[in-house]
Amino acid sequence: MSAEAEESFRKAEPGFRWSGVELLNYKEEGSAPFKAISRQTLFADPRLAGELRYFEIEAEGYSTLERHEHVHAVMILHGRGTCLVGENVRSVEPLDLVTIASWTWHQFRASAGEKLGFLCLVNKDRDRPQLPSAEELEALRANPCAADFFDGGKKSP
Amino acid sequence: MSAEAEESFRKAEPGFRWSGVELLNYKEEGSAPFKAISRQTLFADPRLAGELRYFEIEAEGYSTLERHEHVHAVMILHGRGTCLVGENVRSVEPLDLVTIASWTWHQFRASAGEKLGFLCLVNKDRDRPQLPSAEELEALRANPCAADFFDGGKKSP
Repeated sequence: MSAEAEESFRKAEPGFRWSGVELLNYKEEGSAPFKAISRQTLFADPRLAGELRYFEIEAEGYSTLERHEHVHAVMILHGRGTCLVGENVRSVEPLDLVTIASWTWHQFRASAGEKLGFLCLVNKDRDRPQLPSAEELEALRANPCAADFFDGGKKSP
Repeated sequence: MSAEAEESFRKAEPGFRWSGVELLNYKEEGSAPFKAISRQTLFADPRLAGELRYFEIEAEGYSTLERHEHVHAVMILHGRGTCLVGENVRSVEPLDLVTIASWTWHQFRASAGEKLGFLCLVNKDRDRPQLPSAEELEALRANPCAADFFDGGKKSP
């Protein structure tokens, strides 16, 4: 088998890992609020206009609450969790699809006792995320569902 | 919940279907050789440079043997099967990753008695596939692994 062919096939390994795919920090530590989340880049090919990444959030972990111009196209791969997209908080389960439109505040959280793993498709060329100001966060918390979500869903059943 | 939010969330349904996602023919019948394969477009957003599609091949079905300039980025989602990528025939299992480079002949086949379901990421702007000429098919069949693959893997264990 040629070297090119070997590169073209990456075997799945136990625990949502892949041969030749590096397990990365979600972001640089301290650059933004997040908890217990990792990142693997599954496809980032110079000839592809999109990139497909796999994120995994440990139980009770969360991604950064942020917004940006670029769109996220998410497919839940395993586990259970909750996502905030704009004004809406939704439970997510395997294979659910979530589109995050431009400039929409969003965050993913794993459920208590459950990991949450998901694919996220983005454009290769994309802008950097914005974090909410104190005022923006307060405005978001005016929505009781969002406030409960930010507090880790403690009021949820 | 706003109409926009409803659109942003598409619930997974049993049997690898999604709410609001149409089950499509793989291609126009008779336009190319293929067998027992369906297509669903999971993400095709004007603001995304990529599209994510889900293909499902019934047991013993197959996709078209073809090549094109655009790259395919494939993740197997469920089932078992085999893929030909250039000179190489590989068994594929859930979560395996397959990159199909430009102008590389490729085809997917489901195993006997098993469906094969996979995600395929492509550029939104892409060229149309080419089918092999009789001479090109003969050249591909000079590879015994490829010939066995085209014959449905009857010589495989």
